Amino acid sequence: MVVRGAPAIAIAAALSLAVETSKLLSEEQGFTGTSKDAASFLINKLEYLVSSRPTAVNLADAATKLTEIVTNSAASATHANQVFQAYIEAAETMLEDDVASNKAIGSHGSSFIQNLKKDLNKLSVLTHCNTGSLATAGYGTALGVIRALHADGVLDRAYCTETRPFYQGSRLTAYELVHEKIPATLIADSAAAALMKTGRLHAVIVGADRVAANGDTANKIGTYSLALSAKHHGVLFYVAAPLISVDLSLASGDEIVIEERSAKELLNTHGGLGEQVAASGISVWNPAFDVTPANLISGIITDKGVITKTGNEFDIKGFAHKTGSSN
Amino acid sequence: MVVRGAPAIAIAAALSLAVETSKLLSEEQGFTGTSKDAASFLINKLEYLVSSRPTAVNLADAATKLTEIVTNSAASATHANQVFQAYIEAAETMLEDDVASNKAIGSHGSSFIQNLKKDLNKLSVLTHCNTGSLATAGYGTALGVIRALHADGVLDRAYCTETRPFYQGSRLTAYELVHEKIPATLIADSAAAALMKTGRLHAVIVGADRVAANGDTANKIGTYSLALSAKHHGVLFYVAAPLISVDLSLASGDEIVIEERSAKELLNTHGGLGEQVAASGISVWNPAFDVTPANLISGIITDKGVITKTGNEFDIKGFAHKTGSSN
Repeated sequence: MVVRGAPAIAIAAALSLAVETSKLLSEEQGFTGTSKDAASFLINKLEYLVSSRPTAVNLADAATKLTEIVTNSAASATHANQVFQAYIEAAETMLEDDVASNKAIGSHGSSFIQNLKKDLNKLSVLTHCNTGSLATAGYGTALGVIRALHADGVLDRAYCTETRPFYQGSRLTAYELVHEKIPATLIADSAAAALMKTGRLHAVIVGADRVAANGDTANKIGTYSLALSAKHHGVLFYVAAPLISVDLSLASGDEIVIEERSAKELLNTHGGLGEQVAASGISVWNPAFDVTPANLISGIITDKGVITKTGNEFDIKGFAHKTGSSN
Repeated sequence: MVVRGAPAIAIAAALSLAVETSKLLSEEQGFTGTSKDAASFLINKLEYLVSSRPTAVNLADAATKLTEIVTNSAASATHANQVFQAYIEAAETMLEDDVASNKAIGSHGSSFIQNLKKDLNKLSVLTHCNTGSLATAGYGTALGVIRALHADGVLDRAYCTETRPFYQGSRLTAYELVHEKIPATLIADSAAAALMKTGRLHAVIVGADRVAANGDTANKIGTYSLALSAKHHGVLFYVAAPLISVDLSLASGDEIVIEERSAKELLNTHGGLGEQVAASGISVWNPAFDVTPANLISGIITDKGVITKTGNEFDIKGFAHKTGSSN
């Protein structure tokens, strides 16, 4: 859990291999094989990275693109180092693209919500887990939208859940909000419905670990509960994610397998790393994620624009096609 | 927060004064005043107890009854000690009555739910916070119903939330369930909706800090969110409380003032008693309770039977009158 957040996993993996590759380039003896050998070396490493985090769709996607670049480079390269150089440049571009993608999410989300809530001078937003610069390469997805609303001068207050059991909200999101001097309040996960009932909250914006073709979204445990409460209170509920996070091969959220995590995260302090607090001998059910069905989601804020519903359904494939982002 | 749970507060207060009173009785010098002085002494103490916990309706109610007993006793007593003796006996009876009331709640609730779910061999129930023998004088309210379902051989599994921020679920309810050898599983508060979506849960049973005349119920923060999720998933949602907990002077939950508790409960480990986990400088909103509106409640399980709706409304006053429990 050192590197969290679906986009961050892909970037961190690609960059770590770039660092390893640049060491090979700078070594005296270097890599002794051909350009084809260099390509095989990199492709094997990428396959290994993907096998270590099978549920991280961004990582698989990044690996596919990098594999293609490496293969193309090897076809024309006369020396192994040319292939390594091509890989390093591609990984660096990926980092730059991720920051640009986050900023686009923030900008699209902020304009869209401001337009929806024209009658309000200021609005308040709740987020869950951490989707900021500590989970992405740079600006953040859901937190990117909050940053943009604040920068645009229309954010009254950001609320963040503590996000049990690993406290990504109270440790990381709260840290980023305080650091950015954004007016912010921390609440217990279970207090979100009571907050909505007060009428002080206008939108919930969360990230996504995986979005299916119909818009069903897997995200940190507790997201589904927030979506149910938002629906009941007429509070807007948005998912913010790069369009590339949408896995068009999954028809719906029913196909998303939910990882269960260690009982210790609930039994002990510090998300499982500290001493025991809970009663000994109790069984634990600790799903890492839950799936929020598309019918509870107002829209999906992507780097290519906000996907809204046509009738009662999202046409994500059509949106991707229209924006030239089909993958 | 050493003594929690609305019924427990009343019993503990009444008994602590009984202990103090019995010391007066056993002292050589004893109490030097008249029986009227003894009554004034006790009534002042009771008033002080009530003023220390203004939101504990059971305590106010118990104090009113004890004051009446003390006043009546003083009217006929010839010696102060007779008044003290009358008080001690009344406090002891209150303890016995509380245990009997809890057992009646358990028995009424278990029969009622079994009757509703006749098609199931076994059923699973979720509870929130602690309402067991650690919060009441003896058997428990919501946990009393779970005990009774287990004793009747129809409980598949009890689920308990950890109940942030003070962990009454993971520390106390989990302890009682393990101790009673009831098959039990702990979940994060935010995982309740995901659990309901699996179809494994048949009912939610919670306690009550305060029930208004229309059935709106104030209970530990997070109860409202559970009720919203239960409604969405068609899961039964019951409040278990002695009929005496209903405050007929409150027309609805809108009149219930919600106490806000220390930010430290969310910022530090051990419900605020340990070291800091959350980011420094973040504001906190930490309401102790929320109000679940009657329209989300399937029924109220009391010591006099289960109150169900006539049309869309609870007629608690009528029920109290019918069962001879008007207060």
